[in-house]
Parts: sequence; C-alpha cells; structure tokens
Amino acid sequence: MTHLLTQIEIEQALGALAGWAQTGNEISRSFTLSSFPAALVFASTVGHLAERADHHPDILIQYRKVTLTLSSHSAGGLTEKDFDLAREIDAIA
Amino acid sequence: MTHLLTQIEIEQALGALAGWAQTGNEISRSFTLSSFPAALVFASTVGHLAERADHHPDILIQYRKVTLTLSSHSAGGLTEKDFDLAREIDAIA
Repeated sequence: MTHLLTQIEIEQALGALAGWAQTGNEISRSFTLSSFPAALVFASTVGHLAERADHHPDILIQYRKVTLTLSSHSAGGLTEKDFDLAREIDAIA
Repeated sequence: MTHLLTQIEIEQALGALAGWAQTGNEISRSFTLSSFPAALVFASTVGHLAERADHHPDILIQYRKVTLTLSSHSAGGLTEKDFDLAREIDAIA
C-alpha cells in the first residue's frame, strides 16, 4: 500500500514541478505539441511510461493539446507514484 | 463550408449508429478495450483516421476506456464530417 501524501507533502512535491496543478485528489498538466500527429505520439509515449509504472493517468487529446491527469485511485488520493510518473513525463516533454 | 445538420438530420444519422449519443453540438461514444495498451493502440488508430479526414475528435483515454467526442467546431455544430468519421471509427472498433 502506497502512503497517501498529506497536503503539505503534495505542495512540496508540486513546488519542484513546473506546470502541474492540483485539483482535489488529482494533479494535471497540459502539453501543447506541434501538430495532432505529434500529440498522438506524445500520448502514446506517456502511455508506455504509464504501463511500465503500472500507473495510468487519464490522457485527453484535443488536437495539438494533451492533458494528463494523475491520481492514485486505489489509495484514494495522491501518492509518490503520481509524482514519480509526473517527473518521468516531464523528462520526455 | 460544410452544411450544418438540423436536429432532425442529426437524429436520423444517430438512428443508424449504435452507441453514439448527442450532447448539444457534440456526439460521443465510449469504447472499452481489453487492456490499457489496447486502448492506446485504438486511440492511435482513431487518430490516423482523424488525420486522414482532417477532422479531429477529442480522445480521452481512461485505462481501458476510450471516449471519443466529435463536433465540427469551425461550423459551430454537427455536420456530415462528424458522422462520416463516426462510421469509420465504428468500422474498426
């Protein structure tokens, strides 16, 4: 069972990440790519990271914009798994 | 300029499609795949159809579920392009 982060821990983790924002039990970030095909490839690459981590964000593709939303549903809130994946995603963005 | 469909035309077109529902100026359908990787592949395939048609649905991937939302934003409503792409998507689902 992954430890549920406290609000203070969430804010500390968010402070080290650019572009991610918290809404309740979720964190999300939007990425604007150069084209729709580029957005598809980015979404697919995020998907591969997610599958490897066994942690799956919601992925919304709206033309060139990809919005990722992370939460640890099984834990009922945000955990280190969410921030670990957010950092991995930022590293490929 | 593509012809904006009337509500009667929309309902006729929807009547010939299984699983698609109208919400205002949009039609949407959810597809549940066998796994998250299968959902990614499906989303990518839909993306290729969309790019070929130069008509881009919103694509939301939530684990094994993919929700597609179609609208002709430039026309301000639903057109034949939306239903043409919906039929193409159904043919590969």
